[in-house]
This record gives sequence, structure tokens and C-alpha cells, in this order.
Amino acid sequence: MSVTYRDAGVDIDAGDALVERIKRLAAPTRTPHVLQGIGGFAGLCALPEGMQDPVLVSGTDGVGTKLKVAFATGVHDTVGIDLVAMCVNDVITVGARPLFFLDYFATGKLELDVGEAVVRGIAEGCQRAGCALLGGETAELPGLYAAGEYDLAGFAVGVVERGKILDGKRVAPGDVVIGVASSGLHSNGYSLARRVLEREMGLSMTDRLADLGSTVGEALLTPTRIYARAVADLLDALGDAVHALSHITGGGLPGNIPRVLPDGLGVRLDATSWERPRIFQVIAAGGPVEEAEMRRTFNLGVGLVVIVARDAEDRALAALRAAGEQAWVAGEVIAVGDVPFEDRVVYSAP
Amino acid sequence: MSVTYRDAGVDIDAGDALVERIKRLAAPTRTPHVLQGIGGFAGLCALPEGMQDPVLVSGTDGVGTKLKVAFATGVHDTVGIDLVAMCVNDVITVGARPLFFLDYFATGKLELDVGEAVVRGIAEGCQRAGCALLGGETAELPGLYAAGEYDLAGFAVGVVERGKILDGKRVAPGDVVIGVASSGLHSNGYSLARRVLEREMGLSMTDRLADLGSTVGEALLTPTRIYARAVADLLDALGDAVHALSHITGGGLPGNIPRVLPDGLGVRLDATSWERPRIFQVIAAGGPVEEAEMRRTFNLGVGLVVIVARDAEDRALAALRAAGEQAWVAGEVIAVGDVPFEDRVVYSAP
Repeated sequence: MSVTYRDAGVDIDAGDALVERIKRLAAPTRTPHVLQGIGGFAGLCALPEGMQDPVLVSGTDGVGTKLKVAFATGVHDTVGIDLVAMCVNDVITVGARPLFFLDYFATGKLELDVGEAVVRGIAEGCQRAGCALLGGETAELPGLYAAGEYDLAGFAVGVVERGKILDGKRVAPGDVVIGVASSGLHSNGYSLARRVLEREMGLSMTDRLADLGSTVGEALLTPTRIYARAVADLLDALGDAVHALSHITGGGLPGNIPRVLPDGLGVRLDATSWERPRIFQVIAAGGPVEEAEMRRTFNLGVGLVVIVARDAEDRALAALRAAGEQAWVAGEVIAVGDVPFEDRVVYSAP
Repeated sequence: MSVTYRDAGVDIDAGDALVERIKRLAAPTRTPHVLQGIGGFAGLCALPEGMQDPVLVSGTDGVGTKLKVAFATGVHDTVGIDLVAMCVNDVITVGARPLFFLDYFATGKLELDVGEAVVRGIAEGCQRAGCALLGGETAELPGLYAAGEYDLAGFAVGVVERGKILDGKRVAPGDVVIGVASSGLHSNGYSLARRVLEREMGLSMTDRLADLGSTVGEALLTPTRIYARAVADLLDALGDAVHALSHITGGGLPGNIPRVLPDGLGVRLDATSWERPRIFQVIAAGGPVEEAEMRRTFNLGVGLVVIVARDAEDRALAALRAAGEQAWVAGEVIAVGDVPFEDRVVYSAP
């Protein structure tokens, strides 16, 4: 008897069926710039009209072991939002507007409904970011992933006028550091979070914690906020008074804020200026996890840091809040001299 | 005792060390268009100067279970070439020139030397394609990948003038179908190939087959050819006489050629016009795998199909050969009427 590709574990028909579902999910994300979306060899997207000297900005990321929470709970329609968020929130930090997004979805045995749920989240994320889901790859890789598991990678491209690139050069001592609230862990630190919650505390994803007002799984799966529209409004409102943007991902505040500061500058943060989401308190107490480790692993409630000129503070807060974000003054830019990277973020006395 | 991120299986120092190595590997791929490469939140790349109405062209792909051959042989520095090839060869089919590339590399436990070897291949692929390695993500995901295994996803962006987009509309009956040689399986059909070679034939990757003149592993790991420079030369030489380009991936010739043809048109191929690489004969006999299954799973020796105007045949062959490709007349475009997709590729009597 002869051997077929299907015998070898690859179901081309299931892949084709998923592509048809993806086309329907991607349709609402289509923007006027899209010339050709899902289905061709490649996605085609024009640039916004009237740009003088466009620079392309691109970022790629995954969702990390947050995926394990999706596997454990069977909830697959939010990790796609996280995927878009992680990529798009990087791209906007240089002042770019997201144009389009592509995803890579790989699994051992393609389950149509799981694949569709994942892409539904991706399409939702693209709508929140205002970018087109332009293409993607669904890979069925027998033997590489455990049953019911998958990995995701995302890729976002945005565009910015060369003269409007945020490179941090305008940041100066006295600038205002604005915190923009995260929705929880976002998509970083899940290996540590799960280690503490599951192994140290013996919790399962369906356990309900009074501290959280939800199950552990629900708290961990809260989708990452997408700041694209809020940042676009902020840039429209403030222009050059926006000096820098930092997406708070792995490494936390001390690992990410210095990435957008000129040499010799740091920030002093007032950690009492915001309340940490309760999930972080549960993890810190449950480990226990030391404060320094918490700070360099998690966003601790701050998903985006915006640095603006002092006289633009009120306008910045107003623009961010009008866009639906929680935003507050979290500190200020200071001169720190030649100190190690992470020491450029200091905390005022509690 | 407190719990740390490292306890949870994530080694940030190893990740940072790999980023430093990646920066060195990416440096030679830098093009004049790159404003900011590896290391920032996002990669920045300008457009080539003098473009009138640039359209961005983007594709994403993985390497599939060809990775399993890398795991089995311990040879990790060629799958990166495949990764770039799979993405870039898609992007060029619409007439675009590749601009930049980003990769996603995910593993359970980061092994620095393996990660560096993979990225060395990616950088080599980018050089062959003439595009910049602009960014990437290295994800350490404890528990998602088996020890020593990883997955790869790639994203390529190219650019084309709107008026030069190859959309297949100029294809007409009588056009010449030119085959451009593949180097072997490229990156498709590995689940079937391994099933036949390992399970049906009982071979291991280190077995040497006289038919192949190499070990099984060496034959399977042959890097995918990257056609970007040859296609750029072809477009420069022929201009509008190039009517369509098809990258022969999963689905083979019957699954990919119709994707670039107008309704009602097909191609008649002379399968005796080229010799199949011996690896395909070994697989077909070893399965056995029926001819129809071989045709819809593998490229069978044709990695790229170029469709040109009849009077441009000689110039097309000359341009492709001058660029180092093996190219030959493999058939012609014919009217087929309203037939099922795969029936639009017919074979002349052997």
C-alpha cells in the first residue's frame, strides 16, 4: 500500500478549511491600504497617502508561556490579542502607526476550532490596534508540539515620518514620567507566575481567589492592553512634546525605561503613585518573590511609560484618559550619571 | 527561600548573551536603508530612494518538520537559510525586492551555541537574499518544546512599485513556462519524506545511500535556494515580459502554479524536460508513494516557475542562468476552461 502525506500526519484539507475561516475573520481588519490580504503568496499593503519620507518600523514577538494558561483552561480566543499587543506596543514606541500584522501559528495536530479561536483573538487585536491582518502561516508539525499545544509568533509593521521618529534625544531632566495602566501581567513573567501559583501555592487555574475576584486562570489570561490608538491620539495632541515611550515587557520598569533614555539620564518613580493589580500581590506573597525580582520580571501595573515635557503633563494625561487609558504622573526624569543600566530607575522613599 | 525567574526556567543572561552574538551576525546583512537594527524595541528601515508609489509586500513562513532533521543530525546552521528562503521566495513572486527580515526562535531551554548556529544560517540567508536581518525574538518557553528542540518562524518585507506588481493578468495562452531548479526538497513535505525514509525504509540520518551520493541527513538538509537576486536580475532584464512567478512549496506544481494564473488558464508541463533530484526517486520507490501524491507534496526539482512572453524565452533563460540558476523551458500556458484547481496543471504524454 502506498504512503500519503495524510498518513504522515499532515491534513492539507484541515489547513485549507482554516484558511477560509481566517479570511472571514481578517475581513473586518482590512484597511484602505490593503491591496491583497490572506490567501496569496504574500500580503500587499500600500503606505498612507501624503507621507514625505516614510520609515518602516517592525517588531516580532510571541506570547511566551501565557500559552500554557490557554492550554490549561481551554480558552484560546484571547492569546491572539496578546500576540498583537506585544508586537504593536513595541512598534508604537518610536512614534509609528501600525499598518499590518502577520501571524505564525504552529501546532502538532491542527484542531480547526482551536485554530479559529486563536485567529479570532488575533483579528480582535488587529481591530483594537487599527492594523490589518495581512497574512499568516498555519503550520502542522507532527511530533514537535504536545497534543493540544501550539506556539504563536507575531509580526507587526508600522510607519513613521523620518522627522517624527521618537529616539529619546529630547528627553531631559525634569520631564514628566507618566504611567499608563496595564491590565495585569500582560504577556511576561508567566513561567515565574505559574511556578508560584501552581507549585508553591498549589493552585489550579479554576481555583477562585477572593483576592482576585476571579479564577486564577481568568486573572492570568486577561488580555494585554493595546496602546496603539491611545498613543496615536497622544501624538496628534502633543506632537514634539512627547519625548519617549517605553513598552514595559520582560525586564519590567528598570529593564525597559532606560532603553529609551539618553546616556546619563534616569527616572525617579514614586511607587505609591499607583496601586498594583492584586495578581502581583498574590504572586509576591505566594512565592515569596523578592521585591527586586518582582520589579525586574513584571510590569507591576504599568504597561506603558510616556515621557513628556513638563508643560505638557496635563494635555498628556487628558489625551490618554480620553482614549480610555488610566494614566497618572508616576515620576520624573533625573540625571543619574554613569551608573549600571538597571540603576537608572530609582524609587523615591515609600 | 524566595523564588526567582531563573528558578522558573528562564535564563535572562543567556538571552542577553545570544542577543550580543546575533548583533554581530546581523551586522554584515545591514543595508543602507537600515536606521536601527537588532536591540531596540523595533527595527527601523527606510524605503529605497526614488520610489513613486511603493507597495509593501510581506510574507511569513516556517521551516516545518525539516527542523526534525536538524535535531537528529545536530546540524543547526542551515535551517536558517531555509527560513529566509521560504519567506523571501514568496515575497518576490509579486515582483518585490526584499528589504528586511525578522525571525522568531523559540525553544524550551536556550542553548547558546544552537541559537547562534540557527541565527548564523538566518544571516547567511539574508545575505543571499540581499535583505537586512532587522530584528527577531528569542523565546525561552520551558515545557513547550522537548529538550534540544526548537521552532522557527520568519517574516520578510519587500517593496514594489504599484505599477510593477506581478498579478498574473498579462499571462496568456502560448506564454512560456520556465522551470528553475530546486536544490532538493527545499522546506516542504518533510513529514512524508521522514515517514518513508525512516519508517518504511528503516534508514537513519547517518546512513549513506549510493543513489544520493551523501547521507540521508545531508540530502534532507540541503538548504532551500533563494531566488531573490536571480528574480531581480530577471525583472531588470525583461521588465513587463515577465508575466508571473510561482514559488513551488507545499502543494507542489499543481498546487502552486494555478495560484498565479488568470481564470480559465493552465499550463502543460513536459515532465521529461528536467531530471528529478534523486532524493525524490528514493522516496517514491521507498514508500511507495504514488506519482499523484509525489506531485502534490513535493517540488520534484522545480523550485520556482517563471512565466514569460514567448518572444522573451531566450532572454529569460539567459538572465536566470547568468544569475547562477539552472533554468529550462518546462512547458507552456494553455486555455483549460472551467476545471478544478489542480487540473489546471496537465502533463504532456511522457
